[in-house]
Amino acid sequence: MYAAIEAGGTKFVCAVSDHDFTIKDRKHIPTTTPQETLGAVFTFFDQYDIEAIGIGSFGPIDANPESAHYGYITTTPKLAWTNFDFLGAIRAHYPNTKTAFTTDVNVAAFGEFKLGAAQGKKNVAYYTVGTGIGMGYIHNGQIYMGRENPEAGHFLVRRHPDDHFVGACPYHQDCLEGMAAGPALEQRWGKKGKDIDPNSQAWEIEAYYLAQASMNTTLYLSPDIIVFGGGVSKQAQLFPLIRSQFAKILGDYVDVPPISDYIVPVGLGDDAGITGALLLAAEQ
Amino acid sequence: MYAAIEAGGTKFVCAVSDHDFTIKDRKHIPTTTPQETLGAVFTFFDQYDIEAIGIGSFGPIDANPESAHYGYITTTPKLAWTNFDFLGAIRAHYPNTKTAFTTDVNVAAFGEFKLGAAQGKKNVAYYTVGTGIGMGYIHNGQIYMGRENPEAGHFLVRRHPDDHFVGACPYHQDCLEGMAAGPALEQRWGKKGKDIDPNSQAWEIEAYYLAQASMNTTLYLSPDIIVFGGGVSKQAQLFPLIRSQFAKILGDYVDVPPISDYIVPVGLGDDAGITGALLLAAEQ
Repeated sequence: MYAAIEAGGTKFVCAVSDHDFTIKDRKHIPTTTPQETLGAVFTFFDQYDIEAIGIGSFGPIDANPESAHYGYITTTPKLAWTNFDFLGAIRAHYPNTKTAFTTDVNVAAFGEFKLGAAQGKKNVAYYTVGTGIGMGYIHNGQIYMGRENPEAGHFLVRRHPDDHFVGACPYHQDCLEGMAAGPALEQRWGKKGKDIDPNSQAWEIEAYYLAQASMNTTLYLSPDIIVFGGGVSKQAQLFPLIRSQFAKILGDYVDVPPISDYIVPVGLGDDAGITGALLLAAEQ
Repeated sequence: MYAAIEAGGTKFVCAVSDHDFTIKDRKHIPTTTPQETLGAVFTFFDQYDIEAIGIGSFGPIDANPESAHYGYITTTPKLAWTNFDFLGAIRAHYPNTKTAFTTDVNVAAFGEFKLGAAQGKKNVAYYTVGTGIGMGYIHNGQIYMGRENPEAGHFLVRRHPDDHFVGACPYHQDCLEGMAAGPALEQRWGKKGKDIDPNSQAWEIEAYYLAQASMNTTLYLSPDIIVFGGGVSKQAQLFPLIRSQFAKILGDYVDVPPISDYIVPVGLGDDAGITGALLLAAEQ
């Protein structure tokens, strides 16, 4: 069987599947200390005969196989996990099992590329818009990595003229994540995104920022498709707004695919990440 | 010998070199009509025994080898060149000579990667800041292409608080190119960049925009180095300003190399493009 870990800052999702990637069993484990959390992970996986493990981790992580600290979680504010050799701990427990290790957004991008909304595309940008904003990118069918992984959730947005919210990012205040992630919505409007009226101006402002994300992605990466996942992407009314604002700010400058096929919601829903991690396991 | 064409909107630079890439002969030809300009190009190259031709072209171009219009200049405002089969014309005249075809900024990026300021790096972003702003990118030693080439000169900048210039880009008004290319400097300050006092606030404002370009490049591509070329890059006082503003706006969010090795001026000067085109010819 294939095994997958989607390691988040609040919970770990573990799953196993047959070779058809249908999830056979799944367990949610709270993220506490490495010892406690990984202990529960091993108890779960030890029930199965596992060929390979795919891991998508919260970060920042060192995902460069040539680095001395490959497989580590590095400078996370979750102190128990700072400089923790995550992949090393997995390999120590499963010395004869193949592993793949990348970011949480990269596994979701890979899932969408192989089985989700981006099937048949070669260059796939995937954003998660939830408690934070992250982007994973598939270039020519491979997970993209430069010197490190992209961190596209933090570019400096141009402010919507009606938006006076100060911004919620501890590093950049009013960057994309600071203006458009879940906490920004909640602080600006006094309620969670899921409780905001679909006709509220909140969504026009949100769309303006996600349109800028789409524009920068187009200009820097020139992907075949841009997929939005995460909690905020469940607001279906957002997509027509993102598309129309994107077309307006891009101003016909570069040729893009038909826009309703270009800026799309996640196809695998909340399973994009765990499915991508299973698919990565299968590649090993 | 290797041959190279750096095809610009106002002039073509043609050069030939031996295998050590020292330029043996060079000719500047005005960009008029394809027939006239390429006629002069052929007259120049016909003097030499040429093994391969590398071409870096103004655009937009179709640089996708799988496309039916590979090698064409596409929607340029220079009407005589619209939908012109540039590479086809070269191949028709030199049917037994190997060719390479990419953008003007990509050849310059390749030149800097192989013999310029970015030697020894794998992931190299190169900006030209002149009459326009364009970026070429080398990823893992290869010219990067997604669906098309990047067009990173046109993202929406955050305005400097002291800058009230309306912006000079016909597509986006106050995008990066609209605020930071040569024409923006000239329209904002009433004189060309080369005539503006090195102590003028002009350079602090310019640096703020190029720092945003560096930040977006870091967040989307995670390169090993960012090289700035073109006329504006000849202002040496600009680089300490870009670096300090970059550090300020990035806010230690991602780890980058030592900053004076990370944001650097072009190493090959005005020869980056033509040298890159010779190097691309040699790869064929």
